[in-house]
Amino acid sequence: MAREQFRFFHPLRVRWAEVDRQGIVFNGHYLTYFDVAITEYWRAIGFPYPDALLTHGCDTFVKKATVEYHAPAGFDDVLDVGVRVARIGRSSMRFVLEIYRGQELLIEGEIVYVNADPATRKPTPVPGSLREAIGTYEVSALESA
Amino acid sequence: MAREQFRFFHPLRVRWAEVDRQGIVFNGHYLTYFDVAITEYWRAIGFPYPDALLTHGCDTFVKKATVEYHAPAGFDDVLDVGVRVARIGRSSMRFVLEIYRGQELLIEGEIVYVNADPATRKPTPVPGSLREAIGTYEVSALESA
Amino acid sequence: MAREQFRFFHPLRVRWAEVDRQGIVFNGHYLTYFDVAITEYWRAIGFPYPDALLTHGCDTFVKKATVEYHAPAGFDDVLDVGVRVARIGRSSMRFVLEIYRGQELLIEGEIVYVNADPATRKPTPVPGSLREAIGTYEVSALESA
Amino acid sequence: MAREQFRFFHPLRVRWAEVDRQGIVFNGHYLTYFDVAITEYWRAIGFPYPDALLTHGCDTFVKKATVEYHAPAGFDDVLDVGVRVARIGRSSMRFVLEIYRGQELLIEGEIVYVNADPATRKPTPVPGSLREAIGTYEVSALESA
Repeated sequence: MAREQFRFFHPLRVRWAEVDRQGIVFNGHYLTYFDVAITEYWRAIGFPYPDALLTHGCDTFVKKATVEYHAPAGFDDVLDVGVRVARIGRSSMRFVLEIYRGQELLIEGEIVYVNADPATRKPTPVPGSLREAIGTYEVSALESA
Repeated sequence: MAREQFRFFHPLRVRWAEVDRQGIVFNGHYLTYFDVAITEYWRAIGFPYPDALLTHGCDTFVKKATVEYHAPAGFDDVLDVGVRVARIGRSSMRFVLEIYRGQELLIEGEIVYVNADPATRKPTPVPGSLREAIGTYEVSALESA
Repeated sequence: MAREQFRFFHPLRVRWAEVDRQGIVFNGHYLTYFDVAITEYWRAIGFPYPDALLTHGCDTFVKKATVEYHAPAGFDDVLDVGVRVARIGRSSMRFVLEIYRGQELLIEGEIVYVNADPATRKPTPVPGSLREAIGTYEVSALESA
Repeated sequence: MAREQFRFFHPLRVRWAEVDRQGIVFNGHYLTYFDVAITEYWRAIGFPYPDALLTHGCDTFVKKATVEYHAPAGFDDVLDVGVRVARIGRSSMRFVLEIYRGQELLIEGEIVYVNADPATRKPTPVPGSLREAIGTYEVSALESA
């Protein structure tokens, strides 16, 4: 893995309230960082969350999250959260994320979303226009569905 | 102020994620503690939030919050959050809260809610049955409205 | 997987501040629930965190976290967080966690800790007394290291 | 009060995890916003927190916080958090904060810090150089101490 694999990065600065007694970011907050960066990714590809999805009659729900911790971030660190879509299935999307402080990889992880009906939460196909927007944005080839 | 002023206490234990690099609970989290304890207060008086309020066509919104910090709480501390209603106005309710570790007063504060229409967020009168439930629960006389 | 696999459960109630606009617990908060329950697990086996570890000259750092979301929890739900140690390596420990609402499995996940020197954060062997305390507590056989 | 009273603003965007089931930012999170903006204020006046304070042998602890809620912020809103120091006492500092969405005032509040010895948490005088840095930054006259 390397920074070059990501077209999209969202910068953010670690908040005081996010750092614990060990002087490092509490492990769960990286999922908030992932979420914040994915929101910006949706905006970057022209599908602002959640309105653009709701317009297509769907919403996303997290099905699986994984975080690997290589090195800790501390208070006031400026981090770059890399986001890319690694795979689009019929009704699921797998995001790959990496968090850097400069060139140092601190965190890597993935978020698998299921695309679903907002009311019933039953899986529905990923809209074609979303599939296209992601494909257009990500120059690199997606893994085949 | 003293512990005896409160009929209702909710106990909770400080979480690791709530403690910052100074080794003390981050100042904002006490508003979460207040909120958790008030939820239990609603349950104790037989008006579980938010369903009992919604049944009466209203909901509460925070209008003002104040926190005074006398001594810090640390990781794993068991705290008692005292809650009482100090005043019921036409459409507002003032809660007084104090947080103790044993007999030591750590935090005191107040939360002023406005009772409002859930859709328009415009103030509506506090339902009579809620007024009665609070009055019955709080033995001590409420400040006059 | 089933509730019977866990000797240890920690009950907790979902807080208002933990529920998002979808009406469900924000995905990252389950890592806080895991953390809270593991703290109680340490207490249950007689190794209260972090003092008992620090006494042995070590501390734990999260190396990997995984969460699988089967069904969402909502406001005021009472959850049981099951915790067990599935494997103890030379300097790592793998915790398996499952969150239930009654008999319904909502969440499963794992947390891998590395046991490390608090100052250098370099891995050190899991203390023998901790290994024994876990072994004694967990009746079921641990996976071999 | 008005936007013009503030020389310093910090912009931030509301995160998904900060919005509750009512579709609005949970009341306690505004204290996190205050804290984030005050950190940036320290940076702006050339006293980055906490290092510049620690160099002078002191740290700040929150003594009192007040928040008044005029209108709610929602997901993805871009907010401007205005910060100014309204008063410097012998060992205390009173910050006044206002949060705007465009020209609309949503939130106002204050944070009173005590300047203290990091170890004993006993009040110590605000360092002269900090007093000067704030005075230089704030064109408007401070309330007399």
